Amino acid sequence: MNTTELLSLLEQLTRGELDVASAHGRVVEALRARPFEDLGFARVDHHRAIRQGFPEVILGLGKTPAQIGAIAAEIARRGSTLLITRASEAAYAAVRAELPEAVYYPDAGIVALRQGDIAPGKGTILVCAAGTSDLAVSEEAALTAELMGNDVERLYDVGVAGIHRLLGERERLSAARVIIVVAGMEGALPSVVAGLVSVPVIAVPTSVGYGASFGGVAALLGMLNSCSSGVSVVNIDNGFGAASIASLINHL
Amino acid sequence: MNTTELLSLLEQLTRGELDVASAHGRVVEALRARPFEDLGFARVDHHRAIRQGFPEVILGLGKTPAQIGAIAAEIARRGSTLLITRASEAAYAAVRAELPEAVYYPDAGIVALRQGDIAPGKGTILVCAAGTSDLAVSEEAALTAELMGNDVERLYDVGVAGIHRLLGERERLSAARVIIVVAGMEGALPSVVAGLVSVPVIAVPTSVGYGASFGGVAALLGMLNSCSSGVSVVNIDNGFGAASIASLINHL
Amino acid sequence: MNTTELLSLLEQLTRGELDVASAHGRVVEALRARPFEDLGFARVDHHRAIRQGFPEVILGLGKTPAQIGAIAAEIARRGSTLLITRASEAAYAAVRAELPEAVYYPDAGIVALRQGDIAPGKGTILVCAAGTSDLAVSEEAALTAELMGNDVERLYDVGVAGIHRLLGERERLSAARVIIVVAGMEGALPSVVAGLVSVPVIAVPTSVGYGASFGGVAALLGMLNSCSSGVSVVNIDNGFGAASIASLINHL
Amino acid sequence: MNTTELLSLLEQLTRGELDVASAHGRVVEALRARPFEDLGFARVDHHRAIRQGFPEVILGLGKTPAQIGAIAAEIARRGSTLLITRASEAAYAAVRAELPEAVYYPDAGIVALRQGDIAPGKGTILVCAAGTSDLAVSEEAALTAELMGNDVERLYDVGVAGIHRLLGERERLSAARVIIVVAGMEGALPSVVAGLVSVPVIAVPTSVGYGASFGGVAALLGMLNSCSSGVSVVNIDNGFGAASIASLINHL
Amino acid sequence: MNTTELLSLLEQLTRGELDVASAHGRVVEALRARPFEDLGFARVDHHRAIRQGFPEVILGLGKTPAQIGAIAAEIARRGSTLLITRASEAAYAAVRAELPEAVYYPDAGIVALRQGDIAPGKGTILVCAAGTSDLAVSEEAALTAELMGNDVERLYDVGVAGIHRLLGERERLSAARVIIVVAGMEGALPSVVAGLVSVPVIAVPTSVGYGASFGGVAALLGMLNSCSSGVSVVNIDNGFGAASIASLINHL
Amino acid sequence: MNTTELLSLLEQLTRGELDVASAHGRVVEALRARPFEDLGFARVDHHRAIRQGFPEVILGLGKTPAQIGAIAAEIARRGSTLLITRASEAAYAAVRAELPEAVYYPDAGIVALRQGDIAPGKGTILVCAAGTSDLAVSEEAALTAELMGNDVERLYDVGVAGIHRLLGERERLSAARVIIVVAGMEGALPSVVAGLVSVPVIAVPTSVGYGASFGGVAALLGMLNSCSSGVSVVNIDNGFGAASIASLINHL
Amino acid sequence: MNTTELLSLLEQLTRGELDVASAHGRVVEALRARPFEDLGFARVDHHRAIRQGFPEVILGLGKTPAQIGAIAAEIARRGSTLLITRASEAAYAAVRAELPEAVYYPDAGIVALRQGDIAPGKGTILVCAAGTSDLAVSEEAALTAELMGNDVERLYDVGVAGIHRLLGERERLSAARVIIVVAGMEGALPSVVAGLVSVPVIAVPTSVGYGASFGGVAALLGMLNSCSSGVSVVNIDNGFGAASIASLINHL
Amino acid sequence: MNTTELLSLLEQLTRGELDVASAHGRVVEALRARPFEDLGFARVDHHRAIRQGFPEVILGLGKTPAQIGAIAAEIARRGSTLLITRASEAAYAAVRAELPEAVYYPDAGIVALRQGDIAPGKGTILVCAAGTSDLAVSEEAALTAELMGNDVERLYDVGVAGIHRLLGERERLSAARVIIVVAGMEGALPSVVAGLVSVPVIAVPTSVGYGASFGGVAALLGMLNSCSSGVSVVNIDNGFGAASIASLINHL
Repeated sequence: MNTTELLSLLEQLTRGELDVASAHGRVVEALRARPFEDLGFARVDHHRAIRQGFPEVILGLGKTPAQIGAIAAEIARRGSTLLITRASEAAYAAVRAELPEAVYYPDAGIVALRQGDIAPGKGTILVCAAGTSDLAVSEEAALTAELMGNDVERLYDVGVAGIHRLLGERERLSAARVIIVVAGMEGALPSVVAGLVSVPVIAVPTSVGYGASFGGVAALLGMLNSCSSGVSVVNIDNGFGAASIASLINHL
Repeated sequence: MNTTELLSLLEQLTRGELDVASAHGRVVEALRARPFEDLGFARVDHHRAIRQGFPEVILGLGKTPAQIGAIAAEIARRGSTLLITRASEAAYAAVRAELPEAVYYPDAGIVALRQGDIAPGKGTILVCAAGTSDLAVSEEAALTAELMGNDVERLYDVGVAGIHRLLGERERLSAARVIIVVAGMEGALPSVVAGLVSVPVIAVPTSVGYGASFGGVAALLGMLNSCSSGVSVVNIDNGFGAASIASLINHL
Repeated sequence: MNTTELLSLLEQLTRGELDVASAHGRVVEALRARPFEDLGFARVDHHRAIRQGFPEVILGLGKTPAQIGAIAAEIARRGSTLLITRASEAAYAAVRAELPEAVYYPDAGIVALRQGDIAPGKGTILVCAAGTSDLAVSEEAALTAELMGNDVERLYDVGVAGIHRLLGERERLSAARVIIVVAGMEGALPSVVAGLVSVPVIAVPTSVGYGASFGGVAALLGMLNSCSSGVSVVNIDNGFGAASIASLINHL
Repeated sequence: MNTTELLSLLEQLTRGELDVASAHGRVVEALRARPFEDLGFARVDHHRAIRQGFPEVILGLGKTPAQIGAIAAEIARRGSTLLITRASEAAYAAVRAELPEAVYYPDAGIVALRQGDIAPGKGTILVCAAGTSDLAVSEEAALTAELMGNDVERLYDVGVAGIHRLLGERERLSAARVIIVVAGMEGALPSVVAGLVSVPVIAVPTSVGYGASFGGVAALLGMLNSCSSGVSVVNIDNGFGAASIASLINHL
Repeated sequence: MNTTELLSLLEQLTRGELDVASAHGRVVEALRARPFEDLGFARVDHHRAIRQGFPEVILGLGKTPAQIGAIAAEIARRGSTLLITRASEAAYAAVRAELPEAVYYPDAGIVALRQGDIAPGKGTILVCAAGTSDLAVSEEAALTAELMGNDVERLYDVGVAGIHRLLGERERLSAARVIIVVAGMEGALPSVVAGLVSVPVIAVPTSVGYGASFGGVAALLGMLNSCSSGVSVVNIDNGFGAASIASLINHL
Repeated sequence: MNTTELLSLLEQLTRGELDVASAHGRVVEALRARPFEDLGFARVDHHRAIRQGFPEVILGLGKTPAQIGAIAAEIARRGSTLLITRASEAAYAAVRAELPEAVYYPDAGIVALRQGDIAPGKGTILVCAAGTSDLAVSEEAALTAELMGNDVERLYDVGVAGIHRLLGERERLSAARVIIVVAGMEGALPSVVAGLVSVPVIAVPTSVGYGASFGGVAALLGMLNSCSSGVSVVNIDNGFGAASIASLINHL
Repeated sequence: MNTTELLSLLEQLTRGELDVASAHGRVVEALRARPFEDLGFARVDHHRAIRQGFPEVILGLGKTPAQIGAIAAEIARRGSTLLITRASEAAYAAVRAELPEAVYYPDAGIVALRQGDIAPGKGTILVCAAGTSDLAVSEEAALTAELMGNDVERLYDVGVAGIHRLLGERERLSAARVIIVVAGMEGALPSVVAGLVSVPVIAVPTSVGYGASFGGVAALLGMLNSCSSGVSVVNIDNGFGAASIASLINHL
Repeated sequence: MNTTELLSLLEQLTRGELDVASAHGRVVEALRARPFEDLGFARVDHHRAIRQGFPEVILGLGKTPAQIGAIAAEIARRGSTLLITRASEAAYAAVRAELPEAVYYPDAGIVALRQGDIAPGKGTILVCAAGTSDLAVSEEAALTAELMGNDVERLYDVGVAGIHRLLGERERLSAARVIIVVAGMEGALPSVVAGLVSVPVIAVPTSVGYGASFGGVAALLGMLNSCSSGVSVVNIDNGFGAASIASLINHL
């Protein structure tokens, strides 16, 4: 009930077009409405999809195939694009039983079902990866970004040990609107990339390495301490998280 | 040597106005010229300002006032906006001796001199802070973003212990194009903010806290593990870094 | 020998119903008894059950099924309620061979046998969980609290990424006498909950997450650094520990 | 505006005792009220004091004396009991200038002004401390608990190196409704205390120690891994936090 | 009450020389006596000195000079040897005011007053130190061991970088009954020493070093992982602790 | 060449029974002989057994059964007592093929073959363990100590959560010459034990626990920071190491 | 285009054998050529082999056998020596299918195919190892060094617990041009070795150990904090890395 | 006694110029001489200078000016070049009092006195530094290398954020025989440098940075995990250590 509606209601009441009980009931209802519903909180999923261009995503980690299958069916039934990350073969089987047209991308560990409900991003998201061992995380990022409506370019195996490989691709670097940089070991690639471009760089440390890489901690610290400005960081191996913020940026 | 100059040289050679040895020497010299200069790398500072909308920034940490004063004078002489972070009173004194119109912002630890060379950002950057103890980092972020040409809003003291304070400001949250969230202790604020909006959130952990906050590590880990998507993280207390990437995003 | 028995003995002695040597022997025996027995220490299990409302609990971790079966039988034979945490299927099989009426709760990893010896708690213990991946720890807490005689409410999947889900349940939050909050990843939920209520909050970090969650360390640090007062913390994944102190509080 | 008030207003309107503009204005005002105010969120401080028995507390750490003085004056003006933790001499001077009757407890680092607005707790909170070096944290806990309306007993210097000192005080241990245990170094005292009693134990690790105590980490880990049930833990040196939850428990 | 006294009491009772109430009261009193007193726990300090050959020691860290002075006076008044570790100049001044004959050893940070109450150890304790920077910790160990009644030899500056310095002193190594080895940096000396001798080696890591020595952690870990058997370790910089256990061993 | 042989050689030379060149050659050879052989280093194993009462021990970890079998056979052939720690069933099978009389102790993970070459220790080594989960480490310690010639007593399941269990065994504690204390979780037991006795305590942290026990780190730190004097510590789960130094002490 | 070609072109131009447009086009093309190609970066692999004496190496970790087989075939086809580290049996099978003459060294986890393209080093690289458990890392280092053209000596099982074993081999230590020292546990061996020689020592920490060795961290820290000069360190278990820099040094 | 002296002695004996007892005594004395002296260990300092080209170095850290002055005087009196690292102004004053010609280099924290006793290295050592804040460590490395007889080139402020600055100096990189790379923050520079050259790279992490740089740990881990081969690492801020091994390499 907006103030115009309220004014009208009160005027109806004074004009006798409305009895006190009815007026009382309608105003009480307006007062009682759960504020979070008034703010749109209660139907958040639909609002999120409308505003952000992407519905709820399922993190496959720590859920049973049966649970994943059930949630996936519910999301798809709404006509929403389905995205499941960290999905196993078994999870895919459970989803396919419900949604035969769902697709499994084993390199990325993703199950997806596109439904045409996603708004396109404005530019290109470039996913750079330091080495071939970073493939799984890079593909999680690249595929997530694509599903979220973005044009995605891939630039893999351009680690800093052979800096010429990166420098030779400066045009593709310059053409991107957002760059996701995936690297394990010392995690130096985001610093070098960010020094070459003028767009935001989202850095993803990977758990690639051994010994004192400590499961990605070395790369994470390297990226947090980047001497280049324009870099921010997500969790270790979190290709999905990098794609999410990159997509938000690319939809601005 | 550009292609016009080369054409002219070759014509001089065919016309006999230039002997082969001289022509050879000049072309060899051009071939030998540092390729990165040819690519424009050697004048990076000017290029950076033109492309990124902001010139080189001085990190005051670990430099003497004299060094800071000298570098500041050089930057300002080019007509570039001057920004010095982590600047002490003594550093300011050294800068003021060179550049009397430079301004010191003690809350932010920043010395600045605006020169009208900065392109404006497109929307508003909102700087949220959990508590009053996060003021220094928040102001470093807010002032950096302003100097980089952005409209900046401040929303301070909205920590999650009193969640209504944040929820009551949903309109200002929704109005921002990028949000910087500054928090110490458990660093939970970025997760809550990112769950309420659909724009990128840059999280800045601060070293505010004691005991098991470990100088900001607790907040950093909290932010890296955010259960909300759309969050990326910069180094502890790195308000400048957050503003840099937020400004890049806001200039897209 | 209590004082009434002693008085009776001395009277028998003066009445000649007991000779000096016998009386001497019996009093000496009482004096010689291990003092900790005199203080009740030696029969601690029975005392503990009487005072605390709950007998000894078996931690299944690191014990063989055979060991667990034997200890379980001994506890049950005393008429005490049996509680085994971190119990595997194999442990359950060993227990069931001894105690056919024992029940296995696989979600909680608990084997139990209720025996009607437990005093009821005074109010309701609410178990909040941030995500569905926290189910195992949450159920360990909830079921333990129930077996300890408490009314238990469950409020799951109310993580801070969608804060409205929690805010919409303020009535159930307000109705609890003690709240256990279970969360992994950044562990922010206890801070938000404690800011909404005025009862003690026991926070349980879980090892849910990956990368820089470090097996629950991020959540643990987040909870220890909570900016809300009224929060205390137990070990990572220690649903049982949270329920134990919550039950002690609820029996006060 | 409650529904009775609304009904009355609407009736006045139909009776002509109120004109439409006035009625409109008053109902609009009620609708406009920030919903969190309707839910009681907006006046949280007063609500908190009524429900929890204690108003907002000032953490002195990282605030200037001037800031502390101003906030203290505002709290005291409402008739609320004032509590400032981690308060320096300088902070006290600033407060005393505003509130001459405020008292400084240097051992506890606390400035306080009692105002008779605090509901009494039900039983006794016992503060145990392992060593004399834990005094500051212990006193922060004890004094906070007293200011929150609780009867407080102190039992200091009962560390496990001389276990008889603790065992000799079993009566005082048994008489408490909640026990706060403060210990540095290996932090073993809470385990021993919790094994002797049947009430909740709130453990406070302190930064007392050197070398591999790592500023209280050894004690913190010891307490989190307590083999006794009925123990939960707060941050290192967080005497205030322990007292807050202990007081909540003691007011149940 | 011993058994003879009890027998006498019971006989008096049968002889009518004692009434039942009196007898009952006296036996009840004996039964009620605090068992830890019966076990001698209540006078522990005197027992400790008699059994261990050394009275209570004052750790100066975190105590005021006044507190230290008072405790020192009390210990000395009993005729006990006084030992204060981590003692500052100011602490010494406070002690000297009470006990003019007390001596300050600034290298070791020790204040002491010998009183002739200490039993001599059986053999020699050798204190080896890797470098001159380990002097303070080494002297704390050596002086503590001397005050505890042991013959002490010092063998300093025999770090593994010049292994011949150590090998050239094999006779002094072989002559010791217990060896304390003090080392910072990589903490390798205990491994080498223990490989050369057949007596227990107590290793003391020191905080000497920089960078990745992490305040003694590198040395601590090195010593805990010693590939030589016969080595055990105390806390970083804990010369006193090493001397305590070495003295216990040397008094066996 | 000993001095008698040298005297004889020189006399032969003067008597002409030996020419100068031969004498020179033989003395040069003696001078050149590897000094460590002269010092007995080269046959260290035999010397070690004679001096220390125990020959070389095989750590089974990271060796193949075949390697273990071969080394075991070589040790046993010398008539030395064989001790293999961390030995698997497969390792035992390989040893038994060579040495049929070797015995496997699966609880301790030890393979042994006694050969009567070990000198007896002087007193009793008491092995205390906090919980039944510490059994493997405790048995490694106890059995190693027995094989090294010591009388060993076991006192298991006396953790500090039920302190009366320990206090009731004070006589056995007092009767020991050295005490090994094995504990996981918070590792508090050594502090309590050392406060009750006047003999050296060797503390062994175990990896028993979960969550913030960090594989024994919590227990290790607890023990290193023991507030009781007379405690030193070995590596996590290093029952063998504790027994080795305890045996050295018990043979003094 | 090299300078000879350029000279020829210019001469053709002056001789009229080439028109200006053609000459201009060809020189412009040379100027435009990707500078990194002009510098030889684009064919880096061949350049690297020519300059460094060794072609690209395959890290088997995290690659599928099929991927490894394909890359191996490509490298071998160029006539380059093949080196695959961290190679499994399955990886070897895939390589052997392509390159039947490739050899598998299971101790070192290396697959190799020598092709006679490697320049010999100047002196001997000595690989020292502390214990037999360090074999895999030591062999990775030794075999890598051999494949890189170096004479390699092995000196295994010379850990510091029996220092005479190392001292007895001083001649072999002195004869080396570079020494690689491999050690786990406390990692003390490099310090001792570097104190005995005057050549560079490359230290390799291994993950051998348990408990507080933390997967090689203790050894790594020990080596980084070496009190001997002339030591530098590579990552935990990185035998290949040590051999790479040792070979670079030995080819100087 | 060398072999010539022995031969002479034996000839004197056969010639009767020496009696058997005297000869016996003198040879016994030679045999008894401490073997490490026989091996030259006992005069190690002189040997070290002869072999390594550099005498003992004084680490100023943790020594008093008086101690430093005394040791410096002793070294210089032997005619050896003096090098004191981490030297304060006060230390320099103490040295200058003894050795007026000693020079202080405040940027490097070094006091030195050249004495012409140092053998020259073969090539050039290049010291690269990422930023101007790395100056102190870089200068410690550069000056140490110069004092050790090496030609040293400096290449400062070539961090990876502006990769062209480094690439533009490829000729100087290629001209070096050994390269020391000094970097803080993410420590990425050594990886990039090692990818461009074919000589050994010694990486020095510095403590430059804040927040999650953890005093140089981020840079250290980055360097240990370098994806480029040919890199080894020294301790954080250890410019001296890098120069020492670089000089050993450059003298090969």
